Amino acid sequence: MQTLRDIGEFGLIDRLERILPTSPLVVEGIGDDCAVLRFGDKQLLVSSDLFIENVHFRRDWASPIDIGWKAAAAALSDIAAMGGAPLFALTSLACPGDTPTSMIEGIYQGMASALSRFSAVIVGGDTTRVETGITLDVTVIGETVGSRCVTRHGAEAGDRIIVTGNCGASAAGLHSLQHRHAAPELQQSHFRPMPRISEGQWLCRRKGVRAMIDVSDGLLQDLGHIAAFSYLGINIMSESLPVAQALSRYCQDHGCDPHAYILNGGEDYELAFAVAANEADAILDAFHHEFRLKTTQVGIVTDKWLGVRVDAQPIDTAGFDHFKNALSAQGE
Amino acid sequence: MQTLRDIGEFGLIDRLERILPTSPLVVEGIGDDCAVLRFGDKQLLVSSDLFIENVHFRRDWASPIDIGWKAAAAALSDIAAMGGAPLFALTSLACPGDTPTSMIEGIYQGMASALSRFSAVIVGGDTTRVETGITLDVTVIGETVGSRCVTRHGAEAGDRIIVTGNCGASAAGLHSLQHRHAAPELQQSHFRPMPRISEGQWLCRRKGVRAMIDVSDGLLQDLGHIAAFSYLGINIMSESLPVAQALSRYCQDHGCDPHAYILNGGEDYELAFAVAANEADAILDAFHHEFRLKTTQVGIVTDKWLGVRVDAQPIDTAGFDHFKNALSAQGE
Repeated sequence: MQTLRDIGEFGLIDRLERILPTSPLVVEGIGDDCAVLRFGDKQLLVSSDLFIENVHFRRDWASPIDIGWKAAAAALSDIAAMGGAPLFALTSLACPGDTPTSMIEGIYQGMASALSRFSAVIVGGDTTRVETGITLDVTVIGETVGSRCVTRHGAEAGDRIIVTGNCGASAAGLHSLQHRHAAPELQQSHFRPMPRISEGQWLCRRKGVRAMIDVSDGLLQDLGHIAAFSYLGINIMSESLPVAQALSRYCQDHGCDPHAYILNGGEDYELAFAVAANEADAILDAFHHEFRLKTTQVGIVTDKWLGVRVDAQPIDTAGFDHFKNALSAQGE
Repeated sequence: MQTLRDIGEFGLIDRLERILPTSPLVVEGIGDDCAVLRFGDKQLLVSSDLFIENVHFRRDWASPIDIGWKAAAAALSDIAAMGGAPLFALTSLACPGDTPTSMIEGIYQGMASALSRFSAVIVGGDTTRVETGITLDVTVIGETVGSRCVTRHGAEAGDRIIVTGNCGASAAGLHSLQHRHAAPELQQSHFRPMPRISEGQWLCRRKGVRAMIDVSDGLLQDLGHIAAFSYLGINIMSESLPVAQALSRYCQDHGCDPHAYILNGGEDYELAFAVAANEADAILDAFHHEFRLKTTQVGIVTDKWLGVRVDAQPIDTAGFDHFKNALSAQGE
């Protein structure tokens, strides 16, 4: 009997996309970071993210505020990836009856803090009692800014692939927690990622930015979505990958490969986008001037193959797939 | 240390309502069936409902399509209670990797069936792997119809309290499953409740309908919300409670009290509303003509006390509170 482990998370999404009905009000449905929906004179952006104890977080590592912050940041980041503005959130919580009230209040304060940085508020949700483990599901509702949003499709051969900030820090932070290594800076990246809402909106207004995604499952897998949705290939140049000082030092001290974290580590919530080569320099110069945030060209879009390669070599895209991975993300 | 069991589900909601920030775009926030939100030239209605294995359903009793249907119906019913129209749904799913693909497809088909009866479609969500148990969270997004929606507040002393259809069948159906009694009609009510979307919209257009709620947690508890939000009392006349034939027969055969199911049983998803006494007859006549669905006056709004009484006697409101109940809803 075929199970979810056989077809994986993305196999399931593909299948659901085929069998489920849609509507003319749906501009972008199942499959992109957010759904884009016609509603009156505007367009809605909506996205949900599950955040589950011992899969996405551990109570002994993360504070209640950390847990809430990250649950909300993950959903906010989907809005950022479309270049939208978040407005509202619904937060569903399942937890055991003996959960301390102070812990739940901390989780809600963490969610509210992340949301309020971008002027979004919690407007409802659901609560229910379960035997074990805390489950959060955060739905963020936002709107498109200006006349368009940036999806995963639309990249063209020759486009440069750019990544904001640094990747891999969150995954290295998780490794340091699992192995009890001191790495406060990396752990901070793991616990308090900052969704790139303003940056996403700014990039969305530049026509040269043709496809965008947030790096939630690892650069290889997320760029794989841009390649697949655009029916093209992407070549990542490994020597160009940005290795932040904290990641470099941690990897030297503990014999790890920083590129593995950058390519396969998720939950950094940086933005990766394809930009027209002839407009890239002007756009990136203006971006640096606006945000004082570094960007790195990590690859190029090509029509020579389909999917993502590193240094033109086919790779086993080993990003995080919830159903295929044998180990829990937070397991040792 | 204070836990969620001490303060209960509604204690938690009260507390969150006090500590969480809000926004001028929020017309109705935490606490009502749906949030009502300003968005462009329209108003959004949004609501989330968790639906969890061994709390809300059992895999050995319900088919995958039943599970999906009821998860969606519960969220749709919140839209019905505001008199709105559903448009979109986000469905989050956590389940073990060894879950058969056919089961998950069945659950999604059940959700899509319930939604498509009211022209709503699934537009996204999230999926993740957990060790045990299926968790669904359904967020329904809809819109207000016409110029207003009906909330829980607004009842006035002297208003009649009306309930559509029959209550108690779903809870009696659950009892029959727990005790292996044959009761196909009641079990059908338990597995495939029908949200009262069209009825809710119709009632919402009548100004005499001043407050409304869906009966999801039991008549006592749900009318308790109308009483509390309206700062008034409600007197339920026990002799007027509608006892459907299937419920009456089941209770006779198995020595149960039908009034207990009607007052405390949840998940019927009928509508309960307060209607101005001088307009009630005309509204109810027209309602019957439109829907061929019976309504029953079960009580009256009073300013003589606060909260719900039965035959003017104070009662222990024993409706379902997820954190306070010692037993799981689906447990034996």
